[in-house]
Amino acid sequence: MKLDTLQKLYVEELRDLYSAENQILKALPKMAKGASSDELKQAFEDHLEQTQEHVDRLEEIFKALDESPKGKTCKGMKGLIEEGSEILEEDGEKSIIDAGLIGAAQRVEHYEIAAYGTVRTFANLLGEEEAADLLQQTLDEEGETDKLLSELAEGIVNPKAFSEDEEEEAAVAGSRRR
Amino acid sequence: MKLDTLQKLYVEELRDLYSAENQILKALPKMAKGASSDELKQAFEDHLEQTQEHVDRLEEIFKALDESPKGKTCKGMKGLIEEGSEILEEDGEKSIIDAGLIGAAQRVEHYEIAAYGTVRTFANLLGEEEAADLLQQTLDEEGETDKLLSELAEGIVNPKAFSEDEEEEAAVAGSRRR
Repeated sequence: MKLDTLQKLYVEELRDLYSAENQILKALPKMAKGASSDELKQAFEDHLEQTQEHVDRLEEIFKALDESPKGKTCKGMKGLIEEGSEILEEDGEKSIIDAGLIGAAQRVEHYEIAAYGTVRTFANLLGEEEAADLLQQTLDEEGETDKLLSELAEGIVNPKAFSEDEEEEAAVAGSRRR
Repeated sequence: MKLDTLQKLYVEELRDLYSAENQILKALPKMAKGASSDELKQAFEDHLEQTQEHVDRLEEIFKALDESPKGKTCKGMKGLIEEGSEILEEDGEKSIIDAGLIGAAQRVEHYEIAAYGTVRTFANLLGEEEAADLLQQTLDEEGETDKLLSELAEGIVNPKAFSEDEEEEAAVAGSRRR
């Protein structure tokens, strides 16, 4: 295929994301099973539901473009998911394995943040407003998931430091309200 | 290896990043050679210099920990760099290939943003203040590079839309000053 128009690159990038999201759909149940913390298990299960919506949004965009979403394997996501599988095979302390799983999941989220940022920009440049809106919604959700994972990591690895931080934040917020 | 302490996971994650940065060192000259826009070539060349500093910082951290930086291959980065290589092999319009290269480079940057965010948090939790500072510096630089690439993408793919945006931004900034 010749990449001679932005439209072609846009469709190629959307196909890359479609492959990435489908790989994530398969990986998340294993991540949820391997997680020890109930909050982390829940976060992976919630993100699984969200990922299904992201796939649906991409299918909607492909339908409007009259293009097939299939035909590409996202090699980047393949490597990222292999990293997550490596952690699942490790022996060790439950909370440390959980922290490792979060690290792997945040790399996946950031892949998506970069990739959705790119296609959302292309959709805007191409005047594809509805697609740009859908892609922005997914982009926002990936960002929120990444933030939630950061919070969970600190809480799981060091519950004491985390609760002190929270108390500090609450104190700062309280003093702002005064 | 048994992941039974945060310290062990921290060192493993640092080794993953050391492998990632060294893969990037090898890939960036090819990206610079494959880029058509002078600004993009320059951005890749500047980032090559910065990446060498990031490697030096990691070596400094490993030295203080009395650990070897070697022994891990970052599979995530391997996949991301393969994606960049695929774009370099494509035929097409120069500006579209450049946009594809930027998309691949932003995935690499986001991998690093996620990974450096993780190790910086671990360094803080472990009381490794000097390391946390060094990791934060690199994290900030990866974020700046990602932002610069976003700006370049819009300028390269659609110079007209970009200059209109800039005019609009200048107008907004001007009206704020009034």
